[in-house]
Amino acid sequence: MALSKKPVTGMRDILPSEMQIRDYCIGVIKDTYGKFGFTSIETPCVENIANLTSKQGGDNEKLIFKIMKRGEKLNLDTAHTEADLVDGGLRYDLTVPLVRFYSNHSNELPTPFKALQMGNVWRADRPQRGRYRQFMQCDIDILGEPSNLAEIELILATTTTLGRLRFRNFQIRINDRRILKAMAVGSGFSEDALDTVFIILDKMDKIGLEGVERELQEGGFAQESIDRYLELFRGLEGTEDGLGWLQDKLSGTLEAEVVRNLREIIESVRATRSAEFEIVFDPTLVRGMSYYTGTIFEIAIPEFGGSCGGGGRYDKMVGKFTGNDVPACGFSIGFERIILLLTESGFTIPDRPKRVVYLIEKGVEGQALSDCIAKAQEERSVGTQVLVARMNKNKKFQKEQLMKEGWEEFREFYKNPLKE
Amino acid sequence: MALSKKPVTGMRDILPSEMQIRDYCIGVIKDTYGKFGFTSIETPCVENIANLTSKQGGDNEKLIFKIMKRGEKLNLDTAHTEADLVDGGLRYDLTVPLVRFYSNHSNELPTPFKALQMGNVWRADRPQRGRYRQFMQCDIDILGEPSNLAEIELILATTTTLGRLRFRNFQIRINDRRILKAMAVGSGFSEDALDTVFIILDKMDKIGLEGVERELQEGGFAQESIDRYLELFRGLEGTEDGLGWLQDKLSGTLEAEVVRNLREIIESVRATRSAEFEIVFDPTLVRGMSYYTGTIFEIAIPEFGGSCGGGGRYDKMVGKFTGNDVPACGFSIGFERIILLLTESGFTIPDRPKRVVYLIEKGVEGQALSDCIAKAQEERSVGTQVLVARMNKNKKFQKEQLMKEGWEEFREFYKNPLKE
Repeated sequence: MALSKKPVTGMRDILPSEMQIRDYCIGVIKDTYGKFGFTSIETPCVENIANLTSKQGGDNEKLIFKIMKRGEKLNLDTAHTEADLVDGGLRYDLTVPLVRFYSNHSNELPTPFKALQMGNVWRADRPQRGRYRQFMQCDIDILGEPSNLAEIELILATTTTLGRLRFRNFQIRINDRRILKAMAVGSGFSEDALDTVFIILDKMDKIGLEGVERELQEGGFAQESIDRYLELFRGLEGTEDGLGWLQDKLSGTLEAEVVRNLREIIESVRATRSAEFEIVFDPTLVRGMSYYTGTIFEIAIPEFGGSCGGGGRYDKMVGKFTGNDVPACGFSIGFERIILLLTESGFTIPDRPKRVVYLIEKGVEGQALSDCIAKAQEERSVGTQVLVARMNKNKKFQKEQLMKEGWEEFREFYKNPLKE
Repeated sequence: MALSKKPVTGMRDILPSEMQIRDYCIGVIKDTYGKFGFTSIETPCVENIANLTSKQGGDNEKLIFKIMKRGEKLNLDTAHTEADLVDGGLRYDLTVPLVRFYSNHSNELPTPFKALQMGNVWRADRPQRGRYRQFMQCDIDILGEPSNLAEIELILATTTTLGRLRFRNFQIRINDRRILKAMAVGSGFSEDALDTVFIILDKMDKIGLEGVERELQEGGFAQESIDRYLELFRGLEGTEDGLGWLQDKLSGTLEAEVVRNLREIIESVRATRSAEFEIVFDPTLVRGMSYYTGTIFEIAIPEFGGSCGGGGRYDKMVGKFTGNDVPACGFSIGFERIILLLTESGFTIPDRPKRVVYLIEKGVEGQALSDCIAKAQEERSVGTQVLVARMNKNKKFQKEQLMKEGWEEFREFYKNPLKE
């Protein structure tokens, strides 16, 4: 069979110019999260297929790259279904592996445990522009911290990181699943209608209040509930202290502690007086995954339409692995989107070392070559990047090309030293 | 099905203590190789199955984790063999993907192209202590450089990196496939016996000259050839200038240029006067992979029995993808072995920032909490790592645990500030 030069469908090669920005960002992310006490962990890219199909992953479970059994375990003749042939899969996110990791190692880990994961995940999505089937995720999670210290630290760590990557004027939008619920239930929607209601509410930024009303009507909900629900959102729009206003309006269904908790997060984050971003209560924020149990949040960057990351509290997921619930809260930044934004904005890496090329004429050999090499090593030892290259016949063109790649200075070495 | 807490067979979770060392090493490696002008690239972990089974990978091709076709392409009823079900696989090394990458992008890359790849590879080896089915490889390669500048730069970049990771007294052993061949052919072995002869020679460090003699005899080779062959190795042992001696002895079969080339590499590397390592000509060095065409080399670290990395020149591999040969030379360090050695030797990361814990009593809320958080942010902004944590009832035990994880200083915040 002919060898293929192209990467597999939907995946891509990453060229040096982008890798420089990626490596720089990974460095900044690891350093900044480290300042908040997050420690890196790593799990295998392959997980047992049973863990990946345990209904934690929603629609992502339909997109798994599955791995065939090997050796004696693989029997084509007796296999009736795909499941008979498969024992593993490539992970589709970092949350399921984190929870498995924590269940496996909790005795060896501090409480609370603050984990940083940067790693590839795979989803066999329909290929489309800017979305790939292998992409990097970057998650921080705090396991074992019931108080809102978790939310505060996650938000500060993430916003500090984005600030160091020179993002400005971005927004953290925050809400609580319990507020979402109180608003809907308090308006008269039944508990089992909530998922449908939230899917419609989630479109607010696209279709507006009128669109939400229309879709709720099409969903067959009582006009009275719809009216009361929309009245809440209209009322919030003109209100300075939205949380206080909601607490009054929903005193029967919304617990005071939920509001106090969210208010404390917002105020503690604001107290750091970061100029780069603001944090705002957003009652229309839904976040898709059904595993969230409390606070939810999202990053909005003006240069970029959609969300650039998000997260929330998921206090019931560890229990599904271990039988014992552990409070958990996480924040994932959209690494690939951030790289895309930086690349498109012509981001340049700050404080790069000096870059020098040694151009060595053909014929510089033996002792003369050794001398060049030794000199290059000396320059490197004081921090300079030195590229040692043979001089081409068309030296001018060669230098132009090298300058395009960011090389700045040239030292030339000739067979006949009088030329130098 | 019950969820499994364990990683899949043969793969492992990496805990924070090891990850700290890994992240530090990755940083040093990327920084040092950058000083030599190597640029990072990345390829997908999944490759087309045809590329992975193109006979470039030797026995590794038997160890591939194969990925099932998806959607309409998967048809169990009409599938007769494994090949009908599979379209991809996890890469077993970084060389095949590099060559594919280069074939795909050579128009966009400089000449010569100096690539750094750090990434996981997968091999379904029999699980055994210290060897895992997912492991990190770290390769540098120079494509498009015919001269020995490639070898010199690869060796210096690798040894400088190991030096910065505080390895001392290690050795670079170097040889050339053409010397290997000249010694065997010059002794009377036929060309088609060479693979067998080299497999036996490769055991020299384990079975000694006598063992090599015995196995060659068992292989049915002429005693006359065996005698002449072993005479060469005996003669080399007592000789200061082994290369010069060989050139005399094998003047008919060994080209002077091969010796001059190797001598220049050794002398240029020595001219840098690195105290950490020595470079020596080793006529018994074979290197397994058959794709090598010229120089071959290996790292030997005294603390570690076997090789800790190696590489060589493979001028004929790109041509197998593209039809046009491109000179190529690479050096791979045994990343997992290096991490193992550092971990076992109690390696500590130099120049770590100060690490402070803010212990906040339960009940510190609202404005008081905001003040703590703002203070922590301030300390972080000047480079300190600050862990913000709720104070446990058993504060003494909590502090002991935190000290075990490397936290050094503690600041305590109480509800009643008089306690502080």
